[in-house]
Amino acid sequence: MSADKQFDRTALEQLLTKRFFYAPSFQIYGGVAGFYDFGPTGCALLNNIISQWRNHFVLEEEMLELDTTIMTTHDVLKTSGHVDKFADWMCKDLKNGEIFRADHLVEAVLEARLLGDRQARAAKAGATDADAAAVATTAQKSDKKKKKKGTVVAVELPEEERKAYEEILAQIDNYGGPELTEIIKKYNIRSPESGNELSEPQEFNLMFESQIGPTGQLKGYLRPETAQGQFLNFKKLLEFNNEKMPFASAQVGRAFRNEISPRSGLLRVREFTMAEIEHYVDPDNKNHPGYNDVKDTVMRFLPKDVQLSGKTELQEMTVGEAVEKGIVDNQTLGYFLARIYQFLLKIGIKRDRLRFRQHMDNEMAHYACDCWDAEIQTSYGWIECVGCADRSAYDLTVHSVRTKEKLVVREQLAEPRVVEKWQVEINKKTFGPKFKKNAKAVEEAILSYTDECFAQLQKDLEANGVAQVEVGSDKFEVSKDDVSVQKAKVTEHVREYTPNVIEPSFGLGRILYALLEHSWWVREDDEARNVLSFPPIVAPFKCCILPLSANAAFDPFVRKFSRALRQNGVSTRTDDSGASIGRRYSRNDELGIPYAITVDFQTVEDNTVTLRYRDSTKQIRDSFENILKILKEEQ
Amino acid sequence: MSADKQFDRTALEQLLTKRFFYAPSFQIYGGVAGFYDFGPTGCALLNNIISQWRNHFVLEEEMLELDTTIMTTHDVLKTSGHVDKFADWMCKDLKNGEIFRADHLVEAVLEARLLGDRQARAAKAGATDADAAAVATTAQKSDKKKKKKGTVVAVELPEEERKAYEEILAQIDNYGGPELTEIIKKYNIRSPESGNELSEPQEFNLMFESQIGPTGQLKGYLRPETAQGQFLNFKKLLEFNNEKMPFASAQVGRAFRNEISPRSGLLRVREFTMAEIEHYVDPDNKNHPGYNDVKDTVMRFLPKDVQLSGKTELQEMTVGEAVEKGIVDNQTLGYFLARIYQFLLKIGIKRDRLRFRQHMDNEMAHYACDCWDAEIQTSYGWIECVGCADRSAYDLTVHSVRTKEKLVVREQLAEPRVVEKWQVEINKKTFGPKFKKNAKAVEEAILSYTDECFAQLQKDLEANGVAQVEVGSDKFEVSKDDVSVQKAKVTEHVREYTPNVIEPSFGLGRILYALLEHSWWVREDDEARNVLSFPPIVAPFKCCILPLSANAAFDPFVRKFSRALRQNGVSTRTDDSGASIGRRYSRNDELGIPYAITVDFQTVEDNTVTLRYRDSTKQIRDSFENILKILKEEQ
Repeated sequence: MSADKQFDRTALEQLLTKRFFYAPSFQIYGGVAGFYDFGPTGCALLNNIISQWRNHFVLEEEMLELDTTIMTTHDVLKTSGHVDKFADWMCKDLKNGEIFRADHLVEAVLEARLLGDRQARAAKAGATDADAAAVATTAQKSDKKKKKKGTVVAVELPEEERKAYEEILAQIDNYGGPELTEIIKKYNIRSPESGNELSEPQEFNLMFESQIGPTGQLKGYLRPETAQGQFLNFKKLLEFNNEKMPFASAQVGRAFRNEISPRSGLLRVREFTMAEIEHYVDPDNKNHPGYNDVKDTVMRFLPKDVQLSGKTELQEMTVGEAVEKGIVDNQTLGYFLARIYQFLLKIGIKRDRLRFRQHMDNEMAHYACDCWDAEIQTSYGWIECVGCADRSAYDLTVHSVRTKEKLVVREQLAEPRVVEKWQVEINKKTFGPKFKKNAKAVEEAILSYTDECFAQLQKDLEANGVAQVEVGSDKFEVSKDDVSVQKAKVTEHVREYTPNVIEPSFGLGRILYALLEHSWWVREDDEARNVLSFPPIVAPFKCCILPLSANAAFDPFVRKFSRALRQNGVSTRTDDSGASIGRRYSRNDELGIPYAITVDFQTVEDNTVTLRYRDSTKQIRDSFENILKILKEEQ
Repeated sequence: MSADKQFDRTALEQLLTKRFFYAPSFQIYGGVAGFYDFGPTGCALLNNIISQWRNHFVLEEEMLELDTTIMTTHDVLKTSGHVDKFADWMCKDLKNGEIFRADHLVEAVLEARLLGDRQARAAKAGATDADAAAVATTAQKSDKKKKKKGTVVAVELPEEERKAYEEILAQIDNYGGPELTEIIKKYNIRSPESGNELSEPQEFNLMFESQIGPTGQLKGYLRPETAQGQFLNFKKLLEFNNEKMPFASAQVGRAFRNEISPRSGLLRVREFTMAEIEHYVDPDNKNHPGYNDVKDTVMRFLPKDVQLSGKTELQEMTVGEAVEKGIVDNQTLGYFLARIYQFLLKIGIKRDRLRFRQHMDNEMAHYACDCWDAEIQTSYGWIECVGCADRSAYDLTVHSVRTKEKLVVREQLAEPRVVEKWQVEINKKTFGPKFKKNAKAVEEAILSYTDECFAQLQKDLEANGVAQVEVGSDKFEVSKDDVSVQKAKVTEHVREYTPNVIEPSFGLGRILYALLEHSWWVREDDEARNVLSFPPIVAPFKCCILPLSANAAFDPFVRKFSRALRQNGVSTRTDDSGASIGRRYSRNDELGIPYAITVDFQTVEDNTVTLRYRDSTKQIRDSFENILKILKEEQ
């Protein structure tokens, strides 16, 4: 179903609720935004997606899968930057206390004003009311994401203001608190429904906070990603991998994001299942051993320079071409983009509704140095479902600096090599008496310097005779007598480096939702006949067994067949409800079960059954053994 | 390995760390008690256990699996009783602030004193120091759980005090705050290491608390069990199951318990993976359709009356016998005990180190009406790994009362039946004016009465002309004029009931740890040769491929074989490190990989490989295709 065609999201949502794919959590208590429970169908679908993911990535590439804790201590997430930077801006209706995410609010209000402007123009141009309504509908459909709408009033805007709004909307993701504050003031943006004034935007950290143990002294957060647990174990992983590079760790698990005001169903939730890969690679050699196997994969790219020029045309080419042209930075990144592509197609995402969009420089997370998103088109627009970021050496470096634990690879060099290295000499005689209890900390601070810092230190000492050393928030002054630093040639037999990390990160709930939209269609002959055409490998159940009636003669056959199917890895569901076969077939279609086997009186006589195909509704009759063979082959 | 034999836990723990089964979380930050990360081996082992669990229970019995949120709102857990009752008692060292779990502290100190007493007696009886040390060692080994020890001083105790200590230790699990306070005072129990005085025990709720959203108004907790999410969805599940009874829901997922002072490695942690089944059953008919298939299973039981008489002898009998004799209350409970037993044996738990112990009446959770634990013997003693509780109608009833959502089964009766039911008549004329804005709440409170409450209401109205009605914490007085209540005969066509819930609840981390202990042994010919003999179905990897050397001629064979194995569902790991084959075999044994395939120069010529069996070290040589056939059959 193309995205341009009218997409009846309400009808799909009704189907998903009826067949319990998912539902708001704590619904009998009124529910809380951003929390969903997966029912038997949604849970089986999710489990099957995870299982395919594990086969496709972890087993296929011998990745080292981990299962680390969700609860994470403050220190870890302080170091990773999440305590300081993992935040959104919110503002409050000053009278009724309603809270908004500031960027979403600005977006909603300006979009509403632009819509009002278009309506007013259409009306002025002598269009009928029906035309104006059509403008409204089209405009709503084209919204990037569904937001709480500002009230639409048909008022024409001055040309200049209209342009300003469009510019703001184009770069809304780039604004921080100060910019949002200014926009809200300048364009008199108010609480959309009440019209009340708003507070200035304030930062709100998106991590759920808690206390570990009874002391009240140990702060913890629910992890916002599964990555940090993998980085912390890097040393053990490298050892487990017999010190060989490159390699990848992986993790599937729950992560949390305390959204200010979640909406858009499964697309923006407070608790979700992720699957993340951390591929550790030599920064000097980002080639990948599997690159040749995937380089001919043709995909659709949206590079950053295309976006910067204001266009959205997709560039179709092979991964190899993209890497050669420098559109995709390196082989490893290209390799994973192709593998992500293959995975998404395998589980049923439609090829023509999938693209790879490069992040613009100002859009990337604080740790990333290059990033591509696999975006899937849904009725909410193009949705980021997999991020593939080059996190460089950021995480391993910051954790290493903070903990003084070396998180490096030591590579035995084939030939020793001579390199220039900074040599530091600490004068113990002056150092101890001068810095007393801080002496050790000051020394360690200097020893952990990067090359740039050493160069600066040397420059300062030469120029001024003294230099500043920072230890946490304290500053100390060292002199030429305390410390000397110079470059010298040393012969190295071992190269030591901090690996870079390429991180494919999958939002499984989003992928699942996109798959639901892509799999849904309605049989033309009958408006009410919904079908969910999942590929058999991820369908919640592979086969349904339907006894014709409640006749006890069918029972042993149902039991025998369902056992045989299960033993052959075909998950089954028995539908022995009293409903007619036709009604049960259509229930099957709604559950997305690709095959149905009907047991009837003939079965009792000759062991044959009817196999019905979900998508074509074709039926064939054969012995159960032959049907089983077909199912084993087709899945 | 029998538990009586010296069990070298330190050696096992070294092996588990070396092969990265699990490790303390945030270890490079110093770690936090009660949090563990599973490494590649532990994670694969856990995933395989979960996969077997899902096959054995969910798929085999067509259970409805759910995936509900970890974050749970205050209201839900207030209703379930966890906010008020899910707590332990803690006390504080009044000088250094150290915090202890009060019952563990009492236990540790009294055990230390008893040990000192035994040492003193042994010394007095003229034993050598070595003998006394042996007493100490034996006593330590026999401790039920490893606790932080009180300092052991060899002081003989008066006979009476010794007896008192033993009595206290025997029922330590039954004591609440007041009893613990009394014991601490009476026996002058102090902080074990510092000898300082202790604060009075205080209650500490074991749930991790957090705030949902930015308002600060919505309190949430990390779920302490996966069960509540299942109960909240009962209505949708029943509908999904076409209103048929009995049926079960199931869930695998993370749960949390903010332990006061966790220890004992994986056995008592703050974050863990559980698997829970909620089987909904007619309270008037707890028979189970699968009972006949399992009733001949022979198991070892420890019923509560045996324990009450102070004995621990296990009673070996069939499940059928246990149900018939009333030792196990009903077929459904018996059915699940047998299924749990089968599951644990299947994944490798040793038959002679597994027992089913019934909870004593004062030991059960606040919701349970009968409970059996599958206990597995480890070096820490007999450990509860699976609980199988009859939660009665407790949870569905409390959620229903709180939310006014009917959580019941409606059963069409074959024959209409006449029953006596309470009929209430509210006099709207007096009710409204009298209770004003509370009128509706008071009416609803009366209408939701149980039979017992109606009987009491009638009695009060008859005796006094008035009666009290509680609405939350408010009380209202109704009179005979406001309300009348009597029993009357009504004809019912539908029977409406709240199902009872039988809940098998699996602590997967504990089962995994027990499996590690049961699987570990050391080859007799070589003290250093550890083996972990996991059954192939749960082994972290099924097969290891070992190229004889780094010769490039082996590469295509390694790739071809590992792909073929994976495609046939045999998970593989390639060990192409430079170590000798012998050393790699022994690494294999330590990883618990049941099969190893060696690729050598002969392979290049004739496509044959060597298959080595982990447990027997037997080796056979055959074509790869034949070896593949063996592996597919044996797993």
